[in-house]
Amino acid sequence: MEALKRTCAWLHAHYPEIPILLDAKRGDMENTNEAYARAIFDYYEADAVTVHPYLGAKALAPFLDRPAKTSFVLCRTSNPDSAELQELEVAGGPLYLKIARLAAGPEWNRHGNVGLVTGATYPTDLGRIRAVAPNLPLLVPGIGAQGGELEPVLNYGLDATGEGIIISASRSIIYASSGPDFAEAARREAAHLAQAMQQGQQEVMEKRRKF
Amino acid sequence: MEALKRTCAWLHAHYPEIPILLDAKRGDMENTNEAYARAIFDYYEADAVTVHPYLGAKALAPFLDRPAKTSFVLCRTSNPDSAELQELEVAGGPLYLKIARLAAGPEWNRHGNVGLVTGATYPTDLGRIRAVAPNLPLLVPGIGAQGGELEPVLNYGLDATGEGIIISASRSIIYASSGPDFAEAARREAAHLAQAMQQGQQEVMEKRRKF
Repeated sequence: MEALKRTCAWLHAHYPEIPILLDAKRGDMENTNEAYARAIFDYYEADAVTVHPYLGAKALAPFLDRPAKTSFVLCRTSNPDSAELQELEVAGGPLYLKIARLAAGPEWNRHGNVGLVTGATYPTDLGRIRAVAPNLPLLVPGIGAQGGELEPVLNYGLDATGEGIIISASRSIIYASSGPDFAEAARREAAHLAQAMQQGQQEVMEKRRKF
Repeated sequence: MEALKRTCAWLHAHYPEIPILLDAKRGDMENTNEAYARAIFDYYEADAVTVHPYLGAKALAPFLDRPAKTSFVLCRTSNPDSAELQELEVAGGPLYLKIARLAAGPEWNRHGNVGLVTGATYPTDLGRIRAVAPNLPLLVPGIGAQGGELEPVLNYGLDATGEGIIISASRSIIYASSGPDFAEAARREAAHLAQAMQQGQQEVMEKRRKF
């Protein structure tokens, strides 16, 4: 906890333009979420968090009622077999799509600060989510160690302005090398991915302009 | 974290017969859950934990594959408006009941160590859960501060042997007094609830024997 606190403080001091997202997957009762929100947003001074939807919008109020902070709701997670619950059929569509609709709706997104977590490992589902939540930022893990591909993610996930997705890679960067060059290797891997993202984004937007 | 560690150690040393359940509501990817399971079961030496079902059984494997530990899956939570997602209709029944069925089934409960969280605030739902999961231990929060009543919980929740529910009260006990008598007041409140539980259990089982 101390290392995390120091890391967040260092990042804010040196790179104030980079938002800090704690992938904490919180999801408790309202009174407990109140304490979690204070810890994450006030103590660690994170800018965003990931949350479980299962207890509903009212329980999540302490996160959602922070207009200056973003809460990314778990929607279609990148792990294998995440379909078990997430693709259960509710009202003619999969559960994850119902959650995307709720999260984009006027109750959950009353402050315009809700996002969705949708894995790169299921790119066509990402497209279905983008269709029902055209303006929500999408947090997209699963590129790198989990095997998700960049091109379909950009193709399905970029919003009308060519923005709106945050691609996250963890293990492929922090474990890029286990030797003494680990820092340099991580930097190289991150720069490589950043460049690929930028190039892919341009290609997708060019293609869209043509059709 | 240090206070929690010391509390767990003290409880194990002085009351080894009392299981420790960390209501941590964990629910991450498999590799992260692996670290959470180590923290909860090995570092804190807790006997049980609460988990979110949304990522599915495979992601929860690090919890489920601890035969000597119990994982209570969030099913029908006690908070207001928990129906928003939990009562969504899937395959002819509410989502929470589908989760109860999965949790009781051969994949999730492969080691016979799965339980369900089902709030005292929705006692008839507790009865429906008991019907599809006749042998699972039910963790029942919501008695006390949240206004759940004991009698319907025992009536709907006790299994065929008159056991199988763990009733949890937190705020009504730990906040029983904010004066210098807080410890004595908490003890009194806990003893009072324990007695009411025991008496209610006897009454329910007597009634069952008659019909």
